[in-house]
Amino acid sequence: MNTFLKLINRKDQNFQHWYSEVVFSAKLIEHYDISGLYILRPSAVEIWETLQAFFDSEIKKMNVENCYFPMFVLDSHLKKEEAHNSGFKQEVAWVTKSGQSDLEAHLALRPSSETIMYPYYSKWIRGHRDLPLKLNQWCNAVRWVVGDPTPFIRSREFLWQEGHGAFATEDEAHAEALEILELYRRIYEEYLAVPVIKGTKSEMETFGGAIYTNTVEAFIPNTGCGIQGATTHCLGQKFAEKFEVKFEDKKGEKAMVWQNSWGYSTRTIGAMVMVHGDDKGLVLPPKVASTQVIVIPVPYKDVDTQGIYDTCKATVNMLCEAKIRAELDSRDSYSPEKKYSEWEMKGVPLRIEIRPMDLENKQVCVVRRDNGAKIHIANADLVEEIRKFLNNIQQNMFDVAKQKRDECIQVIHTWEEFKEALNQRKMILAPWCDEKDVELDVKRKTENEMGPAKTLCSPFDQPELPEGTKCFKSGKPAKKWTYWGRSY
Amino acid sequence: MNTFLKLINRKDQNFQHWYSEVVFSAKLIEHYDISGLYILRPSAVEIWETLQAFFDSEIKKMNVENCYFPMFVLDSHLKKEEAHNSGFKQEVAWVTKSGQSDLEAHLALRPSSETIMYPYYSKWIRGHRDLPLKLNQWCNAVRWVVGDPTPFIRSREFLWQEGHGAFATEDEAHAEALEILELYRRIYEEYLAVPVIKGTKSEMETFGGAIYTNTVEAFIPNTGCGIQGATTHCLGQKFAEKFEVKFEDKKGEKAMVWQNSWGYSTRTIGAMVMVHGDDKGLVLPPKVASTQVIVIPVPYKDVDTQGIYDTCKATVNMLCEAKIRAELDSRDSYSPEKKYSEWEMKGVPLRIEIRPMDLENKQVCVVRRDNGAKIHIANADLVEEIRKFLNNIQQNMFDVAKQKRDECIQVIHTWEEFKEALNQRKMILAPWCDEKDVELDVKRKTENEMGPAKTLCSPFDQPELPEGTKCFKSGKPAKKWTYWGRSY
Repeated sequence: MNTFLKLINRKDQNFQHWYSEVVFSAKLIEHYDISGLYILRPSAVEIWETLQAFFDSEIKKMNVENCYFPMFVLDSHLKKEEAHNSGFKQEVAWVTKSGQSDLEAHLALRPSSETIMYPYYSKWIRGHRDLPLKLNQWCNAVRWVVGDPTPFIRSREFLWQEGHGAFATEDEAHAEALEILELYRRIYEEYLAVPVIKGTKSEMETFGGAIYTNTVEAFIPNTGCGIQGATTHCLGQKFAEKFEVKFEDKKGEKAMVWQNSWGYSTRTIGAMVMVHGDDKGLVLPPKVASTQVIVIPVPYKDVDTQGIYDTCKATVNMLCEAKIRAELDSRDSYSPEKKYSEWEMKGVPLRIEIRPMDLENKQVCVVRRDNGAKIHIANADLVEEIRKFLNNIQQNMFDVAKQKRDECIQVIHTWEEFKEALNQRKMILAPWCDEKDVELDVKRKTENEMGPAKTLCSPFDQPELPEGTKCFKSGKPAKKWTYWGRSY
Repeated sequence: MNTFLKLINRKDQNFQHWYSEVVFSAKLIEHYDISGLYILRPSAVEIWETLQAFFDSEIKKMNVENCYFPMFVLDSHLKKEEAHNSGFKQEVAWVTKSGQSDLEAHLALRPSSETIMYPYYSKWIRGHRDLPLKLNQWCNAVRWVVGDPTPFIRSREFLWQEGHGAFATEDEAHAEALEILELYRRIYEEYLAVPVIKGTKSEMETFGGAIYTNTVEAFIPNTGCGIQGATTHCLGQKFAEKFEVKFEDKKGEKAMVWQNSWGYSTRTIGAMVMVHGDDKGLVLPPKVASTQVIVIPVPYKDVDTQGIYDTCKATVNMLCEAKIRAELDSRDSYSPEKKYSEWEMKGVPLRIEIRPMDLENKQVCVVRRDNGAKIHIANADLVEEIRKFLNNIQQNMFDVAKQKRDECIQVIHTWEEFKEALNQRKMILAPWCDEKDVELDVKRKTENEMGPAKTLCSPFDQPELPEGTKCFKSGKPAKKWTYWGRSY
């Protein structure tokens, strides 16, 4: 009963196994008996619900409305936009039977809902007064990926939101794509304390059927891999043409709508675990921790055990009244040390220990999960100090993660430097000619068991590109700075 | 532009078509191009979200935790509990392919998640300290029904929550089944203003694999059909045996858990539409109306048009500040009458009209959606009066619906009376011997294009059953009072 909860794998030594072990041991994930599928346990869903509450209220302020479309789509619709179809067709799961009978037409499970929704956009949108039409749905999506599945990061079914905007003008579409991207940045940076870089995807990495894809890119120093955090796609008028989403404009002329789609998924949680977790387990940013403070009684022999328990309870009550999410661990069959290890595994940001001497001194002992710091706080200052700690931990986790990420960024100018930096697991910033063939060539030449190196994004925030700067690979004039690396 | 939005069908004359027309015209539903599937438009999802917010916070108080399990299940698991499998196997949708390839094993899409979850209950539950385990998920479910689909009421994919509790003792299971049933009653009666009867399902109508099923039953006077509103199932130890969900009890002995499952779905919305809708469209109870008050400017020639608009805006602001969900319809290309018909179709509980003479008199004109009553209110009393109206409408809608429902209830004692009452679309309350053969016999003898008559529930609240009372059909001693009728 009193064996401590400990990880076998080390984050520095065996990242992939460490990750699997953490998400399992922290009870975020349970493995399911069909490959590539995972059970999201309450600890994971609580984080998801926190992000959802934030995002949902923000998009409602933007007048986005929630809806729900069926998850089944006819082959004929799925195929209408060819670039889109190419992006998904290898990963589509097909329903072909119900009960004992074969279905007349095979039905795909949504990998994304452009082709499910837009026939109805065509029906609903008649005149300029019907625009903009901005819908979102919270749902599951299915992509039967063949490569290695990874919990949260790449699974065959996942939870996400998908937003779909239709506009009268190009400008409105561009503006929405940026506005939503900023919300995605806030999810990562303000909630998950994970630094991201905003930018544009290369032609090769653009969503099938989009004219461009904006992304927030995270980076995992331990593996040197980027993670596409969340994306907003400007679909231009490509789908509008295929699905005939037209409207009568103010002059009475027929025009085609401009469209966007955008989504973030449970992948967010995976990125958070990878960035912050350590060899003791999960480390949760206070904003997404459903338990922010765990209070643990530490009795000593029989010295006023009842007093300790009473003080623990009173402490929890006081914190809860102040809207701090505190909980008491009163299990009497577990040693305090066993409890510490369990709550550390679960990533709870602050632990309060209360001993007989604390009662005497009218204080508690507080231990931070993020850096292990231990300090005594007078009872009189408790609420205020705990609140400060939580804010401080949230900020510190972001700062530390950002510093680590920034240390990985390496500016290079030549192919030799590129290969060297890639070996050193850097997030490579390189001047590029922006030609697809070059990205293809880089991918071919860097393929290994972790996949090829590719573009992550061209950051919105472009460093100066001096006249005459050449592409690191083709030697042609460079058009922009672009981040490269391996990627999840 | 100024044609009024009107229903072609009449609720009294052609209920089924009226219903389809209302859910479509009020923009709750759009028909999808695959039979039996429907698009839930924002007006429907808003209602769903209101019910979800209430129920989710209530079950969290009961320490139920949210989780998310994959929607795919192996045939071998689905088949483990035979009664359960029999209930679903004709309606299961099967995924057999991904991309171009056949899957090794066919995967069912969840019709309900008992067989998906309980293998993991078996894994997670070891000792009595792991109990109770109370999980819930908000998700879609798929039942490829063959009969006539009806929006909300019977569709091949639907949204629901499914809760799954595991307990050390039988008593705890029974208690939870009742506690959740009470929440379902509150959803119907307090939110949707739909009266329901709490009771137990007959053996034939019990959920496959359950030892009993509790239900809240609604009734639609126009069609004389019951609607199973939501159910809580006590699964006893049946699934526990099949999936080996065992635990070490306090005495150190192996025991089997007691389990429940419970769910309510988007069907709730359909019942609400059927009960309250009228020939002008939807009628929304204020508690679930995302717009509670629509404010419409009614200019007259050019008399102070700007003053009217300004007053309308000020009125909306005042109501919104008081947390009343008010909205302004300022579209200048629509006549007031056209606006009235549109908001009536959408079921908004209160309409405020503001005319030049109202400005003079410092008043507004308020029109109730539920009973058409029209009254002038002084601006000074506005917030308070509107709040009273909304409460009154909520209560009145329930009272009216309950009176109509109660008028349908008919107590009978003989088969002749039963047939007569069934013809008159009554909700039949009959003394019954509680034998399955009798229910089977009744079903056979009453089958028509609307389906057979069957038991709806045996109400918890049993009228007195005098000694010697006989079953209306078998003539054997009656064991209980039971509601009968056709059913959705």
